[in-house]
Amino acid sequence: MIVTEAELRNFTHQIFLAIGCSQGHAELATDVLLKSDLRGIDSHGVARLSGYVRLWEKGRINCKPDIRIVHETPTTATVDGDAGLGLVVAPFAMVTAIEKAEKYGSGWVSVTNSNHFGIAGYHALMAVERDMIGIAMTNASPLVAPTFSNERMLGTNPMCYAFPAQQHPPLIIDMATSAAANGKLEIAQRAGKQVPEGWVQDTKGNTTTDPHALKMGGSLLPLGSDYQHGSHKGFGLSAVVDIFSGVLSGANYGPWVPPFVAFLDPLPNLPGKGIGHFVGAMRVDGFRPADDFKKHIDRWITRFKAARTIDAEQKVVIPGEPELEAEADRKKNGIPLVDAVVKDLNELADRFGVERLRG
Amino acid sequence: MIVTEAELRNFTHQIFLAIGCSQGHAELATDVLLKSDLRGIDSHGVARLSGYVRLWEKGRINCKPDIRIVHETPTTATVDGDAGLGLVVAPFAMVTAIEKAEKYGSGWVSVTNSNHFGIAGYHALMAVERDMIGIAMTNASPLVAPTFSNERMLGTNPMCYAFPAQQHPPLIIDMATSAAANGKLEIAQRAGKQVPEGWVQDTKGNTTTDPHALKMGGSLLPLGSDYQHGSHKGFGLSAVVDIFSGVLSGANYGPWVPPFVAFLDPLPNLPGKGIGHFVGAMRVDGFRPADDFKKHIDRWITRFKAARTIDAEQKVVIPGEPELEAEADRKKNGIPLVDAVVKDLNELADRFGVERLRG
Repeated sequence: MIVTEAELRNFTHQIFLAIGCSQGHAELATDVLLKSDLRGIDSHGVARLSGYVRLWEKGRINCKPDIRIVHETPTTATVDGDAGLGLVVAPFAMVTAIEKAEKYGSGWVSVTNSNHFGIAGYHALMAVERDMIGIAMTNASPLVAPTFSNERMLGTNPMCYAFPAQQHPPLIIDMATSAAANGKLEIAQRAGKQVPEGWVQDTKGNTTTDPHALKMGGSLLPLGSDYQHGSHKGFGLSAVVDIFSGVLSGANYGPWVPPFVAFLDPLPNLPGKGIGHFVGAMRVDGFRPADDFKKHIDRWITRFKAARTIDAEQKVVIPGEPELEAEADRKKNGIPLVDAVVKDLNELADRFGVERLRG
Repeated sequence: MIVTEAELRNFTHQIFLAIGCSQGHAELATDVLLKSDLRGIDSHGVARLSGYVRLWEKGRINCKPDIRIVHETPTTATVDGDAGLGLVVAPFAMVTAIEKAEKYGSGWVSVTNSNHFGIAGYHALMAVERDMIGIAMTNASPLVAPTFSNERMLGTNPMCYAFPAQQHPPLIIDMATSAAANGKLEIAQRAGKQVPEGWVQDTKGNTTTDPHALKMGGSLLPLGSDYQHGSHKGFGLSAVVDIFSGVLSGANYGPWVPPFVAFLDPLPNLPGKGIGHFVGAMRVDGFRPADDFKKHIDRWITRFKAARTIDAEQKVVIPGEPELEAEADRKKNGIPLVDAVVKDLNELADRFGVERLRG
């Protein structure tokens, strides 16, 4: 089914209202999810809506959160999300970071007691609109094993860096720190295909091409895939995200990060509260005039686009380019939803008395 | 040859004095190089001393630099290194960042017009001693090709994050953003061995196991090695380092970063000055009490050390652990130098009238 942005936005907004979000929060949460669907990151958009609802049913998401700063200096703060939707907690944190950056040049906010925050890029881009560099990261349900281990200890822990440009759209690096994200395994499962070696290992720690291996107790591999190819670096990057998001804020970290799926309960004796995020904003003109910076970012992009290619058919892809192309296309032509997602959303519609998607 | 730390320190100090460094700069530059040799990162220690000397001969390193802040806000600054040794420019920048962090919670400094700064870990650790999180990165001579390209566009662009702990030593993630660093190819060359696929490609962009491929015009591959395994993420990380270090500061970036080897001249029409770094410091107690943070870092380390292993003989390695073990060993038993490095250093000794290494 292909739905317009407007229809999907209206639908999602109503579901968030139905579970008790305020108008403002419902609008914001919807905007974060829609941004993901528009940008072609189907795994992090409305496909997760029923997941949030199930966490709300379990009492693990608070739709009327009192989100507040619990600790701060002029340029740093810790925000307690009060178990709210990460979709609204993270923007609150980013606004705080931006305000600090306006005054002092930079602002950094760690977030505790939160939930899944959607795509990191949404939050980082809030800073870019103010001629700032935006940074956003989050820890997540443990699915990834460190190098030499077969235990799920880390999430796919994404990190995002976004830079403003002038002629070009902003440069956005938004990436999971695992070799592949779970969404890619799910695509292979649906297609009945094998996955490349180096994405996932079975329970014993043998690399496998079976896309079902993760569901069967296996684990994802860090970026780099194996030690020889630098998986200890992927592990290190994931650790950085986990520490900034979880340890610095007072949230959970490592294997204690509460699972996103509602049918798995959090572990006992948690070291912190909920999941954690970390966001930051730095004024570009804290370093050099903003126009200079943006002109050189343009030159950077132009030069890298012109890099000599191996295959004439496959040009060099600038980070964030595929998402921009998807956004242009989907804003115009609508957002394609796979059948499973449509079914899932229409079940929500029936349950909450919201009109079904028509496409 | 095995030399004591004291002998190698004294030797290196004299060489830096001989090329015109002040006492203070010679001591600091020596300390940075020695830290690398002590930590077992042989490629970034005294093995590079003659390289710095050759750049000085070419007039590309200024041993009497006027290092100064050229732009700033309360928490951000740009430092012009005046073509000085990165080994002394980067610590100046980090001191600036730490001072800002003392006052405002965080401090961030981009550096232009500099040279190779040794190991990133040295600079990041300066912050850790003050109960701050330390961050250091630098761009470098172009050797790495972006995904789908066979052109050298990026350096091995390392990033380092260092976190203070309590019972455990600090946690240090210090990594090149390429699949493997050039030093690993050199080790294979000396041993007459092949390297794994996924480290280097030939001039046509075919992956190869020939460790000489880079010297013959090939290029290193980003972390992830190929598109299927996420090399676009390694490319993205390298881009982040390049932009923070080069574009933000007004240094060169991408293919324009001046080569470390003195026999290659910088390109014409450079977009900036020298190479660039980026350093940062954040007070841990800007987010939560420092003791809380450090206790949880200890717990993080303890838990990850105890992660279930695939092979009983190979435990999980905490980032920075091998370097700590090397440091303990080399402080006690001395620093091993390969013959080529001893020869190189003794040529410097003869030339500058410094006593040869005796071991």
